[in-house]
Amino acid sequence: MSAALLALTALPPAASAQEAAPAKPTPADVVAAAPATDWRAIDPADLLVMELAPDTAGQPRRVIIQLIPPPFSAGWTGNIRALARAHWWDGTSVYRVVDNWVAQWGDGEDDKPDAKPLPGGLLVVPESDYLTPIETGPEDGRDFVLTPEKQEVVINRWIDSYAITGFAAGWPIALDDSGGRSGWPVHCYGSVGVARDLSPDTGTGAELYAVIGHAPRALDRNIAVVGRVIAGIEHLSTLPRGRGEAGVYDDAALRVPIRSVRLGDELPPAERPHFEYLASDSASFARYLHLRANRDDDFYRAPAKGVDICNAPVPLRQIVKGN
Amino acid sequence: MSAALLALTALPPAASAQEAAPAKPTPADVVAAAPATDWRAIDPADLLVMELAPDTAGQPRRVIIQLIPPPFSAGWTGNIRALARAHWWDGTSVYRVVDNWVAQWGDGEDDKPDAKPLPGGLLVVPESDYLTPIETGPEDGRDFVLTPEKQEVVINRWIDSYAITGFAAGWPIALDDSGGRSGWPVHCYGSVGVARDLSPDTGTGAELYAVIGHAPRALDRNIAVVGRVIAGIEHLSTLPRGRGEAGVYDDAALRVPIRSVRLGDELPPAERPHFEYLASDSASFARYLHLRANRDDDFYRAPAKGVDICNAPVPLRQIVKGN
Repeated sequence: MSAALLALTALPPAASAQEAAPAKPTPADVVAAAPATDWRAIDPADLLVMELAPDTAGQPRRVIIQLIPPPFSAGWTGNIRALARAHWWDGTSVYRVVDNWVAQWGDGEDDKPDAKPLPGGLLVVPESDYLTPIETGPEDGRDFVLTPEKQEVVINRWIDSYAITGFAAGWPIALDDSGGRSGWPVHCYGSVGVARDLSPDTGTGAELYAVIGHAPRALDRNIAVVGRVIAGIEHLSTLPRGRGEAGVYDDAALRVPIRSVRLGDELPPAERPHFEYLASDSASFARYLHLRANRDDDFYRAPAKGVDICNAPVPLRQIVKGN
Repeated sequence: MSAALLALTALPPAASAQEAAPAKPTPADVVAAAPATDWRAIDPADLLVMELAPDTAGQPRRVIIQLIPPPFSAGWTGNIRALARAHWWDGTSVYRVVDNWVAQWGDGEDDKPDAKPLPGGLLVVPESDYLTPIETGPEDGRDFVLTPEKQEVVINRWIDSYAITGFAAGWPIALDDSGGRSGWPVHCYGSVGVARDLSPDTGTGAELYAVIGHAPRALDRNIAVVGRVIAGIEHLSTLPRGRGEAGVYDDAALRVPIRSVRLGDELPPAERPHFEYLASDSASFARYLHLRANRDDDFYRAPAKGVDICNAPVPLRQIVKGN
């Protein structure tokens, strides 16, 4: 294998007996060395497991989405859970794919007479819910948000081109210090958001999209981010681009059927996916973040000395459990 | 068509007779209204026209790459022109595709005995050429770079997460003010760069990659950016992801054959692609850039008040000429 190929992904360099000093660590090295106590389990109930129709070779196509926990986007994620429990997406499709933008799915006919009826009880979520209040701890000035159970979720912060940003319980968010103190989840590659009509509509969560290109940060605060694809993004990012208006598939035969969407806890126990994320308040994460901003190893010779939040994706890993 | 679908791409709103005030313009509106004098023609000699093998439906797959002009990356683009004139890529392939990273092509066997011989006369480009000296105009403090013909290319500047950034003759670049004043081209979605071995190797330009995910800005200054895909990126971004090490196709049957790569001026005149870019020193571009940073229209209600350089791609258009 040509070293040029390996080098471009900055895989950890092979250990060499002749080296007097240890190799400079890469972000991947830090993640691999993180102790078990730095990882947090993701509740299968926070996962949407989407099965697309098999590909042309008959191979299954599973996309797993982690829903963002309250207090962020809670009205929409509540609707999404209701839609999933109602099996509402079964028989719908991926109907729109735009290069360097999004893949979008759902019924797609929502303003037509034959639109698929939504289950009862969905919330109409106000635009004000794009923002979540940020609290400040009196003793140490730390910023945090409160979950419905009144748990504090502390936010670390630094500045990128768009806002002060940080991580809350493993989720990338941005903060606005001016006037009302509020935070919101940011769009990165793989983020999942709620397609909507024009303001004041905010969407129910029935029509969703995943980002398959450069992070569209201008959408932050304008549309609800409800989660991220944690496995199977390639089943969306490789889809043919739509040639119809706004990238909709003009040929209905191109639509990718969705066989089912289930919350992880509705699957039989042996089939539930198990994932963990690297805790954003852990020492390992702090080292990982520093290296993402300051790559300096066999491949990277000129550290950037900065990073935008989407270039520091929270490390995730899948746990394969025995039966 | 559901308004929700249209809204997500913020297409220009339809004119309404009832509106008392003009609709707020979108970036697309500004580009559409730009006068002819704000557009600059791209010399076909600055284009690499790559024909991949047709797809499974027999449709052609053409990828057009604009090479960055001197003084940026001139050693590598000189090599690339030599390789193109030697028809070196004919019969090579796209052999590596990594989600949210790159699609890479060339011979791919460059450290093996049966590696495809390179043409003579290619330069070995030093690492120092990742950077280009920045001059400052004595009268007005403007920053510029000098082309080989001693033409000034002025740079406008603002700050993003990584560096002071700006545009030079329609190309996104970053600047370093500290110590030696230098600039370099930045990686964005669609950027084309030179795959290399470990430092001090910088690659010849024979193995190239295109960015098919979030802008990998940590690569800036560590690898040569030589151009951008201006048409046909979907032929790369939709390719299956490689399952071999570093995303290389472990099954040779997956490699996408490259039928030919030609500089635009080697094609018969009637076949030469004609493109224009919106001049980055034009008033239209300034308005476009402002709106990319401050989207405020029917769809976007909360302007970001900031933008990273990769979210302000230089507008390009293809000119179809009669025979």
